[in-house]
Amino acid sequence: MSTTIKLSLCQMMVVDDKDANISKAVEMIEKSAKNKADVVILPEMFNCPYDNNKFRNYAESLENGKTIKSVSEAARNFGVHIIAGSIPEIHEDKLYNTCVVFDNNGNTIGRHRKMHLFDIEIPGKIEFRESDTLSPGNDVTVVDIGYCKIGIAICYDVRFPELSRLMALKGAQIIVVPAAFNMTTGPLHWELLMRARAVDNQVFVAAASPARNESANYKAYGSSMVVDPFAEVVARLGEAEDILYSEVDLSKIDKVRNQLPLLKHRREDIYLVLEK
Amino acid sequence: MSTTIKLSLCQMMVVDDKDANISKAVEMIEKSAKNKADVVILPEMFNCPYDNNKFRNYAESLENGKTIKSVSEAARNFGVHIIAGSIPEIHEDKLYNTCVVFDNNGNTIGRHRKMHLFDIEIPGKIEFRESDTLSPGNDVTVVDIGYCKIGIAICYDVRFPELSRLMALKGAQIIVVPAAFNMTTGPLHWELLMRARAVDNQVFVAAASPARNESANYKAYGSSMVVDPFAEVVARLGEAEDILYSEVDLSKIDKVRNQLPLLKHRREDIYLVLEK
Repeated sequence: MSTTIKLSLCQMMVVDDKDANISKAVEMIEKSAKNKADVVILPEMFNCPYDNNKFRNYAESLENGKTIKSVSEAARNFGVHIIAGSIPEIHEDKLYNTCVVFDNNGNTIGRHRKMHLFDIEIPGKIEFRESDTLSPGNDVTVVDIGYCKIGIAICYDVRFPELSRLMALKGAQIIVVPAAFNMTTGPLHWELLMRARAVDNQVFVAAASPARNESANYKAYGSSMVVDPFAEVVARLGEAEDILYSEVDLSKIDKVRNQLPLLKHRREDIYLVLEK
Repeated sequence: MSTTIKLSLCQMMVVDDKDANISKAVEMIEKSAKNKADVVILPEMFNCPYDNNKFRNYAESLENGKTIKSVSEAARNFGVHIIAGSIPEIHEDKLYNTCVVFDNNGNTIGRHRKMHLFDIEIPGKIEFRESDTLSPGNDVTVVDIGYCKIGIAICYDVRFPELSRLMALKGAQIIVVPAAFNMTTGPLHWELLMRARAVDNQVFVAAASPARNESANYKAYGSSMVVDPFAEVVARLGEAEDILYSEVDLSKIDKVRNQLPLLKHRREDIYLVLEK
């Protein structure tokens, strides 16, 4: 049995037009499938500008929204698993930043609502308060897609080591991070955080960003990347729209954990990370 | 009140001669004091080669060993606080990898026994089993040195995010890491781990390594460094013996935590890191 999976990270240029974003996503999914990807990953807020003033207008219910319907059809038509980055979800009048996972028949097999809301205020550089519009999810998410287990952290979620640790302990082999870092936090911390989660948990990390849109209010850092369980960056994009392919050999996880058994060496007699 | 502390990290060349190592440590402490350091940090196993075959011969009791006595006198004579890296400690016939903290009167005000033992096996590159000779400590250590609180992680301890998180939650403002990474793990992970602990906990990290001794069995990576609470490397050495000075402004911690309140944004309703 092969333990190698081909990932495709779609660094989409997200624009202020939902239908155009959906078409672009479907087109990149199709292209990924033609290039033999097994799992296609879309970025955070792939159908909507990352802007508090837009989230409600662009929001959809997961049951009957057209974004979810289109991506589900693409998964079935092109026979790929899809980690659908995130969209603004509306549920009982609350908004969430939500990732949906589809199997290669188009069935929804998982969902993660961003658990940590991004409120930052660095004067003169970046200010954003997701909590003005969004509500947080309350679940640690690991989805079994058949040939591997995938943990999901949406953007700011990746800053909290407890979450990645819990996902690794639940068996996540790849932590997928749909994310839109900005031009302040990106250069400072993007690569550092992706590598940090990989080095501590000895998992793959696949981080998918939107392309940088210079005309948007919020300029994404781009730099979608795949990091291996020894924390080496094995594939990386720049700022432009593109698809990043990476073949990840899951047997590397056991190899690294045999050489340096970090998870076994945790001192559970002294400390514990608990899910409540 | 000034919130700035001058740290001195002594990247000593450790040799196979305990008296020579003690003399070198005292000399570097004196030099640091003359250069107005407030806190002097020694590296891991500063009085002993990093070698399982040497630990027992070099080991001392903390009560009456000559290494501790000499460093205590240096703290008093030169009026500096000292985080005394580590030495092999013997206690009730067990060996520990132990850091002792002295105030500027030479009093012992804290002690950390390495809690995670370094057992690694990367064929053809590096093999080491501390657990063949050493016993682990069982305490999370944060020492109040009067003008700030210092958490201590000895080398492999730094790979476990739970420990640094617990130290930060107990008020540590600087995490001091006496450590001897090697020529495999050093290039791969030294800077990454020091920056990871800083970025997650928004603390300073000060990592002190021995200098690289090309004639030793275990070749230390060197690269002693200081990282600030935004995870920027603010000072760094190469591989040679040298002293690294760094003035750390503790007010940076609150500044960063106000801009990006990571510790507040932890979802303690969902997960918790507990000390048992």
